[in-house]
Amino acid sequence: MEKEFVFGHQNPDTDAIGTAIAYSYLQNKLGYNTEAVALGEPNDETAYALKKFGFDAPQVVSTVADKVKAVMLVDHNEPQQSSADIDQVKVTHVVDHHRIMNFNTADPLYYRAEPKGCTSTIVWKMFNENHVEIPANIAGIMASAIISDTLLLKSPTTTPEDKTALEALAKIAGIDYQEYGLAMLKAGTNIASKSEEELIDVDAKSFELNGQQVRVAQINVVDLPEAMERKEAFLKAMEASSKENNYDMFMLLITNILDSDSEALVVGSDADKALFEKAFDAKLTDSSVKLPGVVSRKKQVVPPLTEAFNA
Amino acid sequence: MEKEFVFGHQNPDTDAIGTAIAYSYLQNKLGYNTEAVALGEPNDETAYALKKFGFDAPQVVSTVADKVKAVMLVDHNEPQQSSADIDQVKVTHVVDHHRIMNFNTADPLYYRAEPKGCTSTIVWKMFNENHVEIPANIAGIMASAIISDTLLLKSPTTTPEDKTALEALAKIAGIDYQEYGLAMLKAGTNIASKSEEELIDVDAKSFELNGQQVRVAQINVVDLPEAMERKEAFLKAMEASSKENNYDMFMLLITNILDSDSEALVVGSDADKALFEKAFDAKLTDSSVKLPGVVSRKKQVVPPLTEAFNA
Repeated sequence: MEKEFVFGHQNPDTDAIGTAIAYSYLQNKLGYNTEAVALGEPNDETAYALKKFGFDAPQVVSTVADKVKAVMLVDHNEPQQSSADIDQVKVTHVVDHHRIMNFNTADPLYYRAEPKGCTSTIVWKMFNENHVEIPANIAGIMASAIISDTLLLKSPTTTPEDKTALEALAKIAGIDYQEYGLAMLKAGTNIASKSEEELIDVDAKSFELNGQQVRVAQINVVDLPEAMERKEAFLKAMEASSKENNYDMFMLLITNILDSDSEALVVGSDADKALFEKAFDAKLTDSSVKLPGVVSRKKQVVPPLTEAFNA
Repeated sequence: MEKEFVFGHQNPDTDAIGTAIAYSYLQNKLGYNTEAVALGEPNDETAYALKKFGFDAPQVVSTVADKVKAVMLVDHNEPQQSSADIDQVKVTHVVDHHRIMNFNTADPLYYRAEPKGCTSTIVWKMFNENHVEIPANIAGIMASAIISDTLLLKSPTTTPEDKTALEALAKIAGIDYQEYGLAMLKAGTNIASKSEEELIDVDAKSFELNGQQVRVAQINVVDLPEAMERKEAFLKAMEASSKENNYDMFMLLITNILDSDSEALVVGSDADKALFEKAFDAKLTDSSVKLPGVVSRKKQVVPPLTEAFNA
C-alpha cells in the first residue's frame, strides 16, 4: 500500500504533532501505510512532551505533493492552515475538532469531527472502537495533547470526554497528569530565550473576518507582569508582521496558565480596535487590556471577534 | 433539550429516509431530542420498506428554520441538495458517504463520513460503538437502505462492511435479505403508473461540472425494452425540464436491477453530447446508448463526466 502522510496544521502545537503520531500509529495497525510528519518544528512544550515519551520530532515538510499522492489530516481542515500544496494531493482521512471551512473534496472520504477539547480525545475513542491497544508512549503523547489543548482541563473548550480520555491515557502512560501536565505547560512558557518576532509566530492563526485579515497569536506564561515588560517590543513586532503580511488586525493573547487569565495586545486601525473593544466589551489602554478568564482562542476569541466584525 | 430535525437529501430515497429514522432513534437513545423528517414524499420502493417494517412516512418539510434552530443531516452535505433554508439553521451533526462540497460551518460539529455504499452502514457501526441495541423494525429499515443503495450488494460502491452490516441487520430484522431485497427493489420499478415527467424527477441530482449545470436522473426497472418504448416521451420531458431549470445537459440512466445493465438517454447541446460520448467511450444513437455494467451514479457516472467536462 502506497505511503500517506499524516499531519496537523501549520505552526504545529502538541495536539497537531502528538495526535499525528498517535493517529498514524492507529492507521498502520489498521492496515494503512502512513508516516506522521509536521508542517513546522515542535515548540518548546511539544519538544518536552516528545522527549518525555521517547519520540523523535517528526520530519518537517513544507510541501507534500512531491512526496506522496494522498494524505490524512489531523487537528485542522481549512486549506489556509494546511500544507501549501494541499490542493495537489488527495485527502483520504480527516480527524478534527474545529469548524469545517473551505474544505472540498472530489471523492467520498473518512471524516471524523467532534466538538471536543482536543483531537487526541477523538483518536482515543477510535482506538477503543477499533479495539487497538494503546502503547504507553502513544498514550503519553496523546495525554500531552489533551493537557496542552485544554490547559490541564481548565479551558472552557474542555468536555467530560476530554477528562475521561486524559485519565485513561495517563493511567496507560504511567504518569500523574496533574504533576506532569504542569511541568509540560511550564516548559512552553520559557519566553526569555526568544525574540518578540519569534514569540508572536509560535502559535498564531489567520482568520478572514468579513473581508478583513485578522491574525490571532497566543503565548502561555507563568508570570504575566514579566511578559508585559516586553509590551512595546511585542507591539513593534506585531506592527512589522502586519505590514509584511497585510494583516488588518493583529491580536496577541498572553495567557497565564496558572490562573487562566490573559492580557491582550492589539495592533490595527482605530476602526478595528473599536471592533475589538466591542467584541470583548473592554477598553484598550495603550493598545492592551486585561481579559480575565479568557484562555481559548477558538471558543472565547474568534466567536466574539467574528460577531463584532460582521455586525 | 430543544428539538432538532434529522433529514436526508431532496428527492429522498430509501437511504435518505430510512437512515434519518434510524439515526434519529439512535440520537434520542443518546439523550438528544430529535425527529426524523423528509424533504419529499417517499418513492414507491421506500414506501414499500416503510410499510413492511411498520413505519409511517416522516413529516415532509420544505423549510426547517421556521420550526427548529438546529438540524442533523444524513446522506448529504451539499447545501444545494438540502433544505432551501439550510443556511438559517445550525447543523450540529452530519453522517454521510459522499464527497464534501460547499459545506461550511461557524462552529465545531459532529461529522462522520466514510466511503461506504450506504449511510446506514455507518449508522450501524455507530449503534455498535455506542452499545445501543437495534430494534427489529429499525434494523429492517436500515437493511432496506443498504439494499437500495447497493442494489442488493451488486453496485460497485458496495464495500465489505456494507455486506457485514446487511447480514447483521437482516438477522435482527428476521428477514431473508435476498428475497426481501428483490421484492423491495421491484416495488420501486413500477413505472407504468407514472408519467415521464414524474419518473425523471424521482431520483435526480444536479451537479455543477466546470460551470455547466448537469442533471443526472436514474430509474430502476426489471424490463429495459419495456421502458425504452417510452424513449421519445422521456426525451421530450427531459428537454422541457432542461429548458425550465436551465440544465445544460440532462442524462437519464435506466437501470435493469436484475442484470445490472443500464441504458442512458441524453439531452443537451452537440458539444455536451460529445463530452458524454468521451466520458463513456460510447456512441449515442438517437440520443441513447447502452452502458453495460453501469449502475452507480456516484461511482460510474459522475466521475467520468466530471473528468470529461474538466478536460
